[in-house]
Amino acid sequence: MNYKELIREVPDFPIAGVLFRDVSPLLQNAEAFSQMALDFEKIIDIKNVDLFVGIESRGFIFAALMAAKFNKGFLPLRKAGKLPQPVLAESYDLEYGQATLEIAPAAKKQRVVVCDDVLATGGTLKASVSLCERAGYEVVDLMVLINLTFLNKMTHKNQPVKSLIQY
Amino acid sequence: MNYKELIREVPDFPIAGVLFRDVSPLLQNAEAFSQMALDFEKIIDIKNVDLFVGIESRGFIFAALMAAKFNKGFLPLRKAGKLPQPVLAESYDLEYGQATLEIAPAAKKQRVVVCDDVLATGGTLKASVSLCERAGYEVVDLMVLINLTFLNKMTHKNQPVKSLIQY
Repeated sequence: MNYKELIREVPDFPIAGVLFRDVSPLLQNAEAFSQMALDFEKIIDIKNVDLFVGIESRGFIFAALMAAKFNKGFLPLRKAGKLPQPVLAESYDLEYGQATLEIAPAAKKQRVVVCDDVLATGGTLKASVSLCERAGYEVVDLMVLINLTFLNKMTHKNQPVKSLIQY
Repeated sequence: MNYKELIREVPDFPIAGVLFRDVSPLLQNAEAFSQMALDFEKIIDIKNVDLFVGIESRGFIFAALMAAKFNKGFLPLRKAGKLPQPVLAESYDLEYGQATLEIAPAAKKQRVVVCDDVLATGGTLKASVSLCERAGYEVVDLMVLINLTFLNKMTHKNQPVKSLIQY
């Protein structure tokens, strides 16, 4: 499937100089929405996964899609202050200021795939991996819908970040 | 499935006097996560639905679950400032202050189910229905995982809000 045809490019959003890639038309397309899961299945070892971890908020969409299609559990990685104790937290730098993510500690060893919509410089994803590992989860893979490969060379366990669309 | 056994009750979160119902253990349970979709299928006329609309951010989980299981599209209803133009906006009162939701206008008539995690007083869900209708979508059903029925008597088109868990 040619996913790029279903992405709308919006110049200067959310700020001047940024080309925003709006995936709404892709998500609304029923065939494309399901096809994404099948295409991720080709590049991720699904049988080796217990939970799909969604980074709030757009990562929730992709983690829930994968958990639903492959009968796995879903785990949220949330913005600060949203999850009840006990939580582990990790702060990281954004282009403007700082952000903090939180997660519930693992009750048992579980293998997770961390999911987000877009990989840009990788700050959010790196903090998410670190946080999951500190919380007791084994991060077996990273997946994003879109990898802006001109902004990062990120890998995980010597594997590329799994993505369906690259720019 | 006894979903209530998979919900953790947390007193005084996020503020004193509130009993927070943490659905994380339920979402992490692979069998329960998929079963939710099958149980919603018994009470929602799925063949009459084009899109599942998720209210940011936890509504994303349930809308994506349903869209994935039943091969439908996903549409996000986002917090202010996250979606590029054109958008329609709707503000509504919260217990403390105000919130604004935004949605992309419908390109064609589509039948949608609006999804969220918890229905309390109904302010968010009512604003979402109004916004979807102004944006050109036909809201055929509302669904939430948990309905706090002691806080609302909400209906939609003379139908109850569809839920799997009631308190």
